[in-house]
Amino acid sequence: MTKDELMALINRSHTADLGYLVNGAPTIRRVFCTWHKGLGRHLISTNTSSGHVRALQKESAACLYFADNETFEGLCLSGHVVLHFERVWKQLLWHPQDVKYYPKGVEDPDYCVMEFVAESGAYYRFDGKETLSREELAAYDQRKEFVSAL
Amino acid sequence: MTKDELMALINRSHTADLGYLVNGAPTIRRVFCTWHKGLGRHLISTNTSSGHVRALQKESAACLYFADNETFEGLCLSGHVVLHFERVWKQLLWHPQDVKYYPKGVEDPDYCVMEFVAESGAYYRFDGKETLSREELAAYDQRKEFVSAL
Repeated sequence: MTKDELMALINRSHTADLGYLVNGAPTIRRVFCTWHKGLGRHLISTNTSSGHVRALQKESAACLYFADNETFEGLCLSGHVVLHFERVWKQLLWHPQDVKYYPKGVEDPDYCVMEFVAESGAYYRFDGKETLSREELAAYDQRKEFVSAL
Repeated sequence: MTKDELMALINRSHTADLGYLVNGAPTIRRVFCTWHKGLGRHLISTNTSSGHVRALQKESAACLYFADNETFEGLCLSGHVVLHFERVWKQLLWHPQDVKYYPKGVEDPDYCVMEFVAESGAYYRFDGKETLSREELAAYDQRKEFVSAL
């Protein structure tokens, strides 16, 4: 797969599977993930009180998996999660209908933004499996900004 | 969600996301998963030479995640993987078209069966999040046999 094909997979996915550790054991949670900065950085809005945020505060190692069952494509990014509680991040992802989940609005302390930062990746398709290095990610993502895929 | 609703989610999924550890870091791979023994045991045929088999031989801790984006349901089972190389398991999952992936047939040493064994679970839907204990899994799965959902 070319990097543009990987970017297309990410952009059409809208959801991804976040892998993280709970007491050292692997755990998965599907998340909405529509804000991307190239292949390597992804923003996810979530509840501060959720189990994955509590777990990631203890251990930030994580993976983010984008897959398409129709095309048999899968991309697993390995890296870590940075939790953002500053208004600038929360405002960027805010939609008026989010008030359903966060009744206090953008400033709701139960609303936060997870930034997934990839350090490497592995992807596969019918035509084989390949890896992505930190350097390849950095080169592709150079001068990119966070953009919503919606 | 009732246990029968969780079983229905598993049975209609056909694929699941397997979470495992590579050098201690969480990693995900989507797998075909259509053979189930109740909620707690699941069989997956795969290549012996694959990265996830190599990783699971070192560290068997794993999770198996079933999710439905339409109904916003998700079930994450936590447990471990037992690798089976005996013919009885390989024969059970074998389909004639598998010869595409395993040219030497059922006895192909590159063909093996992963058995995921759940020790606990967590599930969520719009109406909340709940957990499944080892005892609840054992009670629901009592006297069940492996059955294909296809």
